[in-house]
Amino acid sequence: MWFITPMRTILLIAAAALLIGAAPAKKLLTPNDIVAAAPASAWKTIPADDLMVMDLANGGRVVVQLAPAFAPVHVANIKALARGKYWDGATVYRVQDNYVAQWGLNESDKPWPSGVTAKPPAEYTRAVGGLAITPLGSPDPYAPGAGFADGWPVAYNAREGWADLTHCYGSVGVGRDLSPDTGTGGELYAVIGHGPRQLDRNIAVVGRVIDGIDKLSTLPRGTEALGFYKDKAQFVPIASIRIAADLPVGERPSYETMDTASASFAEYLKLRANRHDDFYIRPAGGVDLCNVQVPVRKKA
Amino acid sequence: MWFITPMRTILLIAAAALLIGAAPAKKLLTPNDIVAAAPASAWKTIPADDLMVMDLANGGRVVVQLAPAFAPVHVANIKALARGKYWDGATVYRVQDNYVAQWGLNESDKPWPSGVTAKPPAEYTRAVGGLAITPLGSPDPYAPGAGFADGWPVAYNAREGWADLTHCYGSVGVGRDLSPDTGTGGELYAVIGHGPRQLDRNIAVVGRVIDGIDKLSTLPRGTEALGFYKDKAQFVPIASIRIAADLPVGERPSYETMDTASASFAEYLKLRANRHDDFYIRPAGGVDLCNVQVPVRKKA
Repeated sequence: MWFITPMRTILLIAAAALLIGAAPAKKLLTPNDIVAAAPASAWKTIPADDLMVMDLANGGRVVVQLAPAFAPVHVANIKALARGKYWDGATVYRVQDNYVAQWGLNESDKPWPSGVTAKPPAEYTRAVGGLAITPLGSPDPYAPGAGFADGWPVAYNAREGWADLTHCYGSVGVGRDLSPDTGTGGELYAVIGHGPRQLDRNIAVVGRVIDGIDKLSTLPRGTEALGFYKDKAQFVPIASIRIAADLPVGERPSYETMDTASASFAEYLKLRANRHDDFYIRPAGGVDLCNVQVPVRKKA
Repeated sequence: MWFITPMRTILLIAAAALLIGAAPAKKLLTPNDIVAAAPASAWKTIPADDLMVMDLANGGRVVVQLAPAFAPVHVANIKALARGKYWDGATVYRVQDNYVAQWGLNESDKPWPSGVTAKPPAEYTRAVGGLAITPLGSPDPYAPGAGFADGWPVAYNAREGWADLTHCYGSVGVGRDLSPDTGTGGELYAVIGHGPRQLDRNIAVVGRVIDGIDKLSTLPRGTEALGFYKDKAQFVPIASIRIAADLPVGERPSYETMDTASASFAEYLKLRANRHDDFYIRPAGGVDLCNVQVPVRKKA
């Protein structure tokens, strides 16, 4: 039913119900049905200290879940930068179609706030040990293994002992100069196109946009090389970037993410790889990592 | 160098040149370097009869390359619809983030122009025989094989004998109702997010956007279910949809696509899977099909 209009859908469903009469056929579940039916135990609240709230001057809000278990020093830097109000006066200055939207101070000499590690380690992978991974169950072109750990899409190599957060739609990473630079966290980007996984293990991934990605994905594309805006007048001003835990209690947004070790997620994953609901004729029998977005929802 | 700003890049390159002195190191090529250096013989002009030119009323132009070798009846329909000016008065009426932008007449009872097959066959796959496929060289989660045929990304099953055009960023498909409906071609969508390959072999893919995808990807997202715009006032008017061959000679846009059987494309593909230029520390050693966009360029 993905490609038909609501009114026609309603009429078709009504017609189907009439045909079926008193003995309704078993409804074929969609991945969204699984999400809607998941018990409270299948959800985990995201700590307010791991939510970065970016308010654009135009009123749009973008919320990023940070991943301290994967890039602890970079994430600590991002929290220190937010707490030091480093990004006051920052902008979105680069938007490249099918790639990334990038923000920060762009070549500023503004000093780092206290608590910022100027040269973090290259947190591009972490030890696979200690992660409880739900395997994807399909081959991954980028690594021997792929799956989900504590709500995050990961690729891994058990033999070599590493795992990494992958570049999927919405993933947030740290801009850096050429190696050995690893980036501080002052310049961040969000993926707004097909997952550019060639960047995996080459850059620090620090989280993912969990709300408001459209405030970035709909921005005009920059016309300079790599999607940089040509004129400063095109830069999109950022009003503030704060950590949710630092906002007044009544103003804190709150979210929960599906537990990727839950039975609900296992069923969701299975259906993402095997769509057999009304619209689908041929289930794929497989799925790629970035095509299984871990469900996230806002809490009241 | 993807994440650094132009000025800093220039300074770094200048510094590197100074360090290297009179014996410059061998430059590590990027995929774009291969495209820039490809000889004329590596390019094929796209026939003007296979270019669909959509002009939005706001001045934006979107150009679609049609794929008659994969969905001949649907593509013939699209040409007949354009030639019959069926889409005069059409709109973009649905934009779903990380999924599709969809356009057409949306529930109109407007009669089909002459030459339109009202119920095309399900052109969701074609025979793999007759296609010269350059293999991707990496595993594909959706099919036993994946690669490139005559400029198109394809998945295939040699044993079962089928191949299909895949849903990658920019792919254009035909909206349809529930099966057995196959869609006529009157309602079309373009992918504006991570390739939704679960749709492969479930819907007719008829081409891909080769220019102006940003005119669709930057549109506001619809707030109704599946990204439909809530109010007709939000619909984005289309001024005209024409086939390039029908435009006056001086007004025809012209494009060429890299020959996916060429040595240049083989090198491009290899580098897409193994980035080892300045920015990259760890080449992936693999790549997914949709992350290898076949190069296309405008002809003067």
